[in-house]
Amino acid sequence: MVKEIIVLRYGHRPVRDYRVTSHCCLVARAFGADKVEVIGEKDESIENTVNTMNKQWGKGAGVEFFDSWRKRITHYKKKGFTSVHLTMYGLPVQETEQAIRKFNKLLVIIGSQKVEKEVYEMADYNVSVTLQPHSEIAAMAVFLDRLQEGKELAKKFGGAKISIEPVAKGKKVNKK
Amino acid sequence: MVKEIIVLRYGHRPVRDYRVTSHCCLVARAFGADKVEVIGEKDESIENTVNTMNKQWGKGAGVEFFDSWRKRITHYKKKGFTSVHLTMYGLPVQETEQAIRKFNKLLVIIGSQKVEKEVYEMADYNVSVTLQPHSEIAAMAVFLDRLQEGKELAKKFGGAKISIEPVAKGKKVNKK
Repeated sequence: MVKEIIVLRYGHRPVRDYRVTSHCCLVARAFGADKVEVIGEKDESIENTVNTMNKQWGKGAGVEFFDSWRKRITHYKKKGFTSVHLTMYGLPVQETEQAIRKFNKLLVIIGSQKVEKEVYEMADYNVSVTLQPHSEIAAMAVFLDRLQEGKELAKKFGGAKISIEPVAKGKKVNKK
Repeated sequence: MVKEIIVLRYGHRPVRDYRVTSHCCLVARAFGADKVEVIGEKDESIENTVNTMNKQWGKGAGVEFFDSWRKRITHYKKKGFTSVHLTMYGLPVQETEQAIRKFNKLLVIIGSQKVEKEVYEMADYNVSVTLQPHSEIAAMAVFLDRLQEGKELAKKFGGAKISIEPVAKGKKVNKK
């Protein structure tokens, strides 16, 4: 059963990629990942967004920037992580999820710009979510939901100052 | 059983929202929606992206721009659609999906900027995908995957010039 999930976002350009990378970080956090690592130029606006979220909405995955994807993948391989690269060229998620669910520690790699060939080679699994081009944000969300069989949807975030009470109409927000 | 899915994207600003709105359109298409309607200023760059995708990768959902979300929601209500607004304030997807799956025609509303109160009132269902702030792209993908119980993952797109043959490593692309 999966106990630890690290998301590695391959590529980030400050300003230009701010919104897409912040969607990636917030989705990883909301869907129960333990940490996000972004390969690219350090971007304080992303760090601030994620830190603010963790302060307000409860403690979830933080974000850290690194220069080399090769070093980070190698680092996690040495620590016993199984690496899953999400790509539309890979094997369908519905055929691979059951096998992947058995590992304890997962490194989930998601691209942005063109991903180098070596990533496909280094990854233990290359997994597709549909065989169509769409969005790394969507692919990661669906993969994490299937991997955890929906258990992540009800995850509680410790130390939250704001929390939501689900309602059929309107908004109900509890503040501490 | 759901037979027709229209995605209504509430809000779009040209240039600034290009990437996020195009992710929304491509995810809706890849996950089997029949059409995307965007409320906002007509944006040819989005139309071109979606049209090119449909020509190259096979016929899926197209996109059309409209001025008034109120008129479009009313239009679909009159045509017998059940409307589902995805919002983190709504009832959890895991508790509502079974009921929603029974309808034939669905209008799935996804926000971007702040959504007006009236949308919450007009929607037949307000549905949350986790109770955390994250991404409308991710919320839509997970909702559409759960709604269709994964059947959309293997959808074939007619008339494709390019298609992918899933492989464990690397890329295998078939071109006509």
